[in-house]
Amino acid sequence: MKNKIFIVGMGPGKEEMMTEEALAVLEQSDVIIGYSVYLNLLGERFKEKQLLSTPMRQEVERCRLCFEQTKQGKQTALLCSGDAGIYGMASLMYEIGKGYPEIELEVIPGVTAASSGAAVLGAPLNHDFCVISLSDLLTPWELIEKRLLAAAEGDFAIAIYNPSSHKRKDYLKKACDILMHKIEETRACGYVENIGREGTKAVTCTLKELRDREVNMFTTVFIGNSNSEIINGKLITKRGYSIKKRT
Amino acid sequence: MKNKIFIVGMGPGKEEMMTEEALAVLEQSDVIIGYSVYLNLLGERFKEKQLLSTPMRQEVERCRLCFEQTKQGKQTALLCSGDAGIYGMASLMYEIGKGYPEIELEVIPGVTAASSGAAVLGAPLNHDFCVISLSDLLTPWELIEKRLLAAAEGDFAIAIYNPSSHKRKDYLKKACDILMHKIEETRACGYVENIGREGTKAVTCTLKELRDREVNMFTTVFIGNSNSEIINGKLITKRGYSIKKRT
Repeated sequence: MKNKIFIVGMGPGKEEMMTEEALAVLEQSDVIIGYSVYLNLLGERFKEKQLLSTPMRQEVERCRLCFEQTKQGKQTALLCSGDAGIYGMASLMYEIGKGYPEIELEVIPGVTAASSGAAVLGAPLNHDFCVISLSDLLTPWELIEKRLLAAAEGDFAIAIYNPSSHKRKDYLKKACDILMHKIEETRACGYVENIGREGTKAVTCTLKELRDREVNMFTTVFIGNSNSEIINGKLITKRGYSIKKRT
Repeated sequence: MKNKIFIVGMGPGKEEMMTEEALAVLEQSDVIIGYSVYLNLLGERFKEKQLLSTPMRQEVERCRLCFEQTKQGKQTALLCSGDAGIYGMASLMYEIGKGYPEIELEVIPGVTAASSGAAVLGAPLNHDFCVISLSDLLTPWELIEKRLLAAAEGDFAIAIYNPSSHKRKDYLKKACDILMHKIEETRACGYVENIGREGTKAVTCTLKELRDREVNMFTTVFIGNSNSEIINGKLITKRGYSIKKRT
């Protein structure tokens, strides 16, 4: 096993929302590597492990650390929030792994914020949907714009990750303005802050209202499709079933 | 609790891939309702529960059964494969729930096939992506076509659910033909059969090769974006990190 690194999705944060498999892999590890915010969310029983971190934007170094620890004979897990393969470290690990052909990689999937946030809001992604990050650290803003327009063009429900940060306070507003070229401003939308953590807060609103909301970096935003509506305060995207009683 | 129905995502099938929360909710239930294929995947310890089912395409009746069992005083869970809010029963439950205002609903999210299938293949969804079902039971084929084109237009990675069934053997071929209007035929793709179940099989191939593959109904298909490549047999969608050592 020691020549294998597990890349683990922890889900939104609380331990109950991790899979049994993810918990078992962490328990079997000598060292758990991750961004400190996620390491801090781990339960007490994992605090006795060797926990290693690199700062934000030092993701390449964080991945290399996994390979170096494994070469030293330690069973190593790389911890990612949500799902390790959705804006997580999985692909970077495979890229860097080209330099370590003797070390195998295995991704342990987790519950991504599209799923966990949707569950809090109701069922906003219950038909075809897109997931788009507004972070332009690694992606040109023009491509993000193009994807927002394509998602609206296809009448997809949309989950938006990274809608805001200290340096990108107006990005959600910009994204809503783009979407409003194609989508009516009364479209049913919603957002969830701190999913699966202290202070979870879910809000439903129209696209126009969403445009002017300030959301923090721990928020996931949901844009309904043309079949979405608010039912008893929940954001619901209908699948098209006829719910009339069959006769 | 008895006036609350839990709508539970079980993940791909095996118990280790369920969250602790999902397992706890099933343990506390008197009756578990679901499509028989999913009930059969449950571990032995749940077989002593009352397990109720309705046939395929009797989803409305299955949901009504949940409300009726709850009205009889039973703690009820509705079991869905993957995530209950992604092509699951969550939105239909909220729609039907309008007729049962005294009964509360809570969605317990799970690992959807986009995540679990991606983990087997490598990291095909590690940037913005779309999820599209090819089932036209509830969705006009024209809308599915429009979404495929929009997804290609936006250079999204794509996860395709329900790529085939007994009556829709050529739908994946049709979808690939549509995508090839916008995407080069050498695009890196892959598919996974029986994720998290007996006989898991993962294959990588080009879009042109994918067009001519016969896949079964328990398959999830992945189309890379323009930054995807096959690395050591894994389908990887790069996020854009520079992996040169910093100096």
